[in-house]
Amino acid sequence: MGNNKKVGVLGLGRMGAALAGALLGAGHDVVVWNRSPLKAGPLLDRGARLAAMPAEAAEADVVLSCLSTYDTQQPVLDELTPSVLVNLTSGTPEQARGVAKWASSRGIDYVDGVIMAVPQGIGTPGARILYGGSPTAFAAQRDVLEVLGEPVFLGEDAGLAALYDLALLGIMWSTMSGYLHALALVGTEGVAPERFTPMALSWLSAVGGFLPGIGAQVASGEYTTDVSALDINAAGLKLLVETSRERGISTAVPAPLAELFGRAAAAGHGAHAIASVIEEIR
Amino acid sequence: MGNNKKVGVLGLGRMGAALAGALLGAGHDVVVWNRSPLKAGPLLDRGARLAAMPAEAAEADVVLSCLSTYDTQQPVLDELTPSVLVNLTSGTPEQARGVAKWASSRGIDYVDGVIMAVPQGIGTPGARILYGGSPTAFAAQRDVLEVLGEPVFLGEDAGLAALYDLALLGIMWSTMSGYLHALALVGTEGVAPERFTPMALSWLSAVGGFLPGIGAQVASGEYTTDVSALDINAAGLKLLVETSRERGISTAVPAPLAELFGRAAAAGHGAHAIASVIEEIR
Repeated sequence: MGNNKKVGVLGLGRMGAALAGALLGAGHDVVVWNRSPLKAGPLLDRGARLAAMPAEAAEADVVLSCLSTYDTQQPVLDELTPSVLVNLTSGTPEQARGVAKWASSRGIDYVDGVIMAVPQGIGTPGARILYGGSPTAFAAQRDVLEVLGEPVFLGEDAGLAALYDLALLGIMWSTMSGYLHALALVGTEGVAPERFTPMALSWLSAVGGFLPGIGAQVASGEYTTDVSALDINAAGLKLLVETSRERGISTAVPAPLAELFGRAAAAGHGAHAIASVIEEIR
Repeated sequence: MGNNKKVGVLGLGRMGAALAGALLGAGHDVVVWNRSPLKAGPLLDRGARLAAMPAEAAEADVVLSCLSTYDTQQPVLDELTPSVLVNLTSGTPEQARGVAKWASSRGIDYVDGVIMAVPQGIGTPGARILYGGSPTAFAAQRDVLEVLGEPVFLGEDAGLAALYDLALLGIMWSTMSGYLHALALVGTEGVAPERFTPMALSWLSAVGGFLPGIGAQVASGEYTTDVSALDINAAGLKLLVETSRERGISTAVPAPLAELFGRAAAAGHGAHAIASVIEEIR
């Protein structure tokens, strides 16, 4: 492979190890560093080299950082001045922008990324990684990043990927909570998860089909509907809360949504579409 | 069409009119009744016959009832004794079981259904209708029900369809709320819905892929994970709440979930999978 690169990987937790493994599999020259070098064993067997100090791993075309937190990461970064740093440590948009500022002061080309996949998914087709920061660094290292998962460049703001990450995870937590509540509800009649879940999946796919329309209404601020008015949905949520209570299960998931929808309806959006609920959020 | 049937339709709101229209389109002999007969006009133009009294519409192979509420419906039902009644009026499992009992006392074969589609979707491939009640009546009228949408028979309990309905709608309300919160969050950085939504859709489809695994863990009560522990997700939810607050948007959607996940972690599930949150719900 003529176009293999030297890639430094800082941090060998589950995710860092998965990244290094995928890069080795693609034939890149991988130098790894971890606070506890013992974790590097399986990667060294596969051809990785061990850096005794972070700075050694930074003598590379690109350095990927995947540490547990930004607080753990900064002292490590302070030891090195790579030409390109791709920061995959999880944090807030503000933290990412802080490192971008630090990188800029050192002349380091900086890209901040978030991994929308579990470690087992790295390098497989479903994995997607969102990036923000230097477009030139992203373009130059795209071949390396494509090994890890489908790279999506969001823009020059280094905080964008972390913001998208939080927003997308929020959708996941909401959906999973709704699903768990639904399992508890049908469970009160002895319906097993494996019986209910196929229905939930095809319904979730239908719900996904509603989102672009909702998004367009949010974008335009035009909330008229001839399909499903907010007051009907607010009443439905109230019914879900009452039915859950009667059956002795927690209302922790639907009750706050019933209140939110109710507030939006009371604010004059009763005959509007569900999209109008965003007026109570932002 | 040799196998066309005589079908009575009670109630010509948006949904009732869509049902009658689909049945006419399939060549059935449709008799409609509505409190205000004016609404029948467009259907009469297409060949429907108007019943002056509910009982006239009940002289049919099967009667579909689609009225606004169970309270509106019962006085109408009291006027008739059809051989088969398919009740598509929206309500609770208890209400559906109440009508089932009434039907049984009159010797009426009874099926309760819920329509997982909007009126515009009736008769199109995406429409799914869930049924519970008499299996023989369902089997005998399956040809008629297939005209309206894909029929799914859940079991002999007439309340099951309404229970599934509430549970599935709950997933929809949770997912839509999570999506609206996400739009508000990325909106604080000027990201427009049309830019964010494609990412949200492919992510939602990935989230759907996690549900069967979660369902299996709920079924077994075995919550070990090597992918994503609850305490990491609880911390992420807390971060989402803080980030939302800092950006001046409501925490109405994520804050109750952060509390719920936090309670489950505090109850000893921190190292377990997200599925363990159901222990705090049921």
